[in-house]
Amino acid sequence: MKIAQIAPIVERVPPRTYGGTERVVHALTEELVKRGHEVTLFASGDSISSAKIESVYPRSLREAKLPDIYGSNPWTLLNFGLAYELQDEFDIIHDHTMPLSLPAANIASTPVIGTMHGAFNATNRRLFQTLRSPNIVSISQAQIFSAPNINHIGTVYNGLPMEHYPFSNENEGYLLYVGRISMEKGVHHAIEVAEQMDMPLIVAAKLDPNDQQYFKGYIEPRLSNRIKWIGEVDEEERNKLMSKAKCFLHPVTWREPFGLTLIEAMATGCPVVAFNRGSIPEIIKTGVTGFVVEDTESMIDAVEGISAIDRAACREHVLSNFSATKMAGNYEELYKKLVLP
Amino acid sequence: MKIAQIAPIVERVPPRTYGGTERVVHALTEELVKRGHEVTLFASGDSISSAKIESVYPRSLREAKLPDIYGSNPWTLLNFGLAYELQDEFDIIHDHTMPLSLPAANIASTPVIGTMHGAFNATNRRLFQTLRSPNIVSISQAQIFSAPNINHIGTVYNGLPMEHYPFSNENEGYLLYVGRISMEKGVHHAIEVAEQMDMPLIVAAKLDPNDQQYFKGYIEPRLSNRIKWIGEVDEEERNKLMSKAKCFLHPVTWREPFGLTLIEAMATGCPVVAFNRGSIPEIIKTGVTGFVVEDTESMIDAVEGISAIDRAACREHVLSNFSATKMAGNYEELYKKLVLP
Repeated sequence: MKIAQIAPIVERVPPRTYGGTERVVHALTEELVKRGHEVTLFASGDSISSAKIESVYPRSLREAKLPDIYGSNPWTLLNFGLAYELQDEFDIIHDHTMPLSLPAANIASTPVIGTMHGAFNATNRRLFQTLRSPNIVSISQAQIFSAPNINHIGTVYNGLPMEHYPFSNENEGYLLYVGRISMEKGVHHAIEVAEQMDMPLIVAAKLDPNDQQYFKGYIEPRLSNRIKWIGEVDEEERNKLMSKAKCFLHPVTWREPFGLTLIEAMATGCPVVAFNRGSIPEIIKTGVTGFVVEDTESMIDAVEGISAIDRAACREHVLSNFSATKMAGNYEELYKKLVLP
Repeated sequence: MKIAQIAPIVERVPPRTYGGTERVVHALTEELVKRGHEVTLFASGDSISSAKIESVYPRSLREAKLPDIYGSNPWTLLNFGLAYELQDEFDIIHDHTMPLSLPAANIASTPVIGTMHGAFNATNRRLFQTLRSPNIVSISQAQIFSAPNINHIGTVYNGLPMEHYPFSNENEGYLLYVGRISMEKGVHHAIEVAEQMDMPLIVAAKLDPNDQQYFKGYIEPRLSNRIKWIGEVDEEERNKLMSKAKCFLHPVTWREPFGLTLIEAMATGCPVVAFNRGSIPEIIKTGVTGFVVEDTESMIDAVEGISAIDRAACREHVLSNFSATKMAGNYEELYKKLVLP
C-alpha cells in the first residue's frame, strides 16, 4: 500500500528527548516499512526513518527556536498542506496533526485516517462533529468519551518497540517522574509523596517558558539532595533511569488520552502508580503492573505496597498489549478496510 | 452567482471598532447582494449583513474574550472548515482567512479566490508558492513584490462605501492618529511630530496586551493635555474625528499591504501624511491628497505645508478609486473568469 504518514514537525521523528507523538509515528512507520508498504513520512528534515521523508523544514521547529511552534506557523501548515497537495500519490493518508489539518482532511479525495493525539474537549469536539469525513482513531477508550457523534472508527493503543527497552529486575530505591514540569502533569504531587515518605525522587523533565511560574512557585523551592531535577534527558538515559527506579509516579491531573511514559516505564520492569484520570486505567493492570489511585494519600499507600509487584509482569504486560507490532497491525487492518481494491 | 464569503471571526462583520478585513468583507458582501448574487457569509453570529450568515460562534472571538483568537483556535478552523465542507453549494468561494485556510483551499473542488489581507514575507511565501491551486488576489501592487511565483491573479484595492463618510471642509487644527498602539504602527513618530510642532494630537487606538510594554515605555510617559490617548472609538466617532482633523498621520514602519484608515481619512476630507512603506504610495496622491515621506523630519515639513491640500480633492480621490462599488466590480470580473458556465 502507498501510505502517507503526517507527523508533527515540532520534534524530530523520532524525538531526541520529549515528544510522544513523534515517537509513536516513528515506531509505526518503521513497522509499516517492514511489512512491505511504501511509506512517505511528512516530518522535519532531520528525521530518521526507513520510509521516504518529505520535509518542508530542515530541523525540528523546537530546535530551530522558531516562534509559535505549537500553533499554525507557516511550516506546520505547509507540512500537512503538502501531504494533501500530493494526495493522489497515496492509497491512504494517516494524519497525526489534527485538529489543525482537519478542514483540509475533510475535503480530501484520498481516504484519511486521523489519529487524535491530544484531548477532545468542549471547544474542539464540535469541529470533529461537523467535519466528519476523515476517519478518526482514538488512542484510548477514555479519550473518545468526550467526543460523542464524531466519525470514530476505532481505538488503537499507542505502541513502541518495547523489546528494545532495557529490563532490570533490581531497583535502586528511588522514585521517578518523567515528562514535563507543569501544573496539569502534577509534578508537585510526586514531590509531596517523596517528601512524606522520605524517599529520593528524580524528576527528569523539560521546562517550557510557559511553566516557569509553576516551577518557581511549586517545584524549585522543594528541590534538594533527595529531590532532584535533572532537566530533560535523552531516550537512553531515561530508559536507564526507569529500569533502576523503585516506582514510576504519574500524578497527572487531567484526562490524559494516553500515558506513553507509563508503558515505557513498565517495559523496563518499573511498576507505575498513577492518578485515575482519562486513559490511565486502560494502561495499568492494577495490582499486577502497579496501581491506579485517587489522590496523594492513596499514592503513598500504593508506593508502600509496590514491592509486591513483579517487575517481569510489568514488561510482559506491555510486550503483549503495547508493542509497535500490535499497533501497526491494528492500523494496517483499518487501512485495508478504507482502501478500495 | 452563488458566492461564499469567508470572513475572519475575530471581529464582527462589520467590526464595532477595529477590524479592517471585516470592514472590507462587509462592504464587498453588501455590494454583491445588491448586484443580485446569492451570497453566504461565513462570519461571527453577531454579524450584520444582507447576505445569508453561516456562523459557528454567536459572537466575535475578541468580544467573547476567547484564547488564541488570532491563531488556530477550533472556532476559526470550523468557520472556514464549514465553508469548504459546503463547497458544492457555491459557484465560487472567496476566502479572506488565508494563510490558515490555504491547505484546505488548495484541494477544494469549487474555484477559490483568496484575498491575502496580511503581508507576504519570507516565512509564509513558500506556503503560497507550494500550494498553488487557489487564485490569490493582492490588495496592493507592493504587497505582491514579496511573493514571487505564487498563483497571483490580480490586485484589487480595498474599497468602502466612501459616499457615506461625513465630509468637512473645515478643520479644528489637531493632528490625528487612528489604529493600534504598537511599535510597528509607529505611534511614537506621530507623537514626536506633534511635540516638535507643538500641535495637539489625538490618538484613537486600541491597545492589545502584547503591546503594553511599548505603551508603558514609549507612549504613556508622553501623554498630556495636548497629546491625548482616547482609546478605541466606534466608527461614527472615528469618522467625526477624521473629518475635523487638520492632518492624519500614518507613520507606519512596516510594509503595510494596504492602509485602510488612509482612505477613510481622505473620504472625510482629511489630508494624510504617511511613511513611504509598502502600499502607501499607491493610496496617497502625493501633493494632491497629502504626502508620502521618508522620516519624522520630512513628516514635519509635510504637515507644515498641509494647508495647500484641497480637502475636496481628498474625497474625490477615494470616491473614484477606493469605493465599495469599484472593489466589488473588480472582484465580480474575477469571479466570472473562474466560474465555468
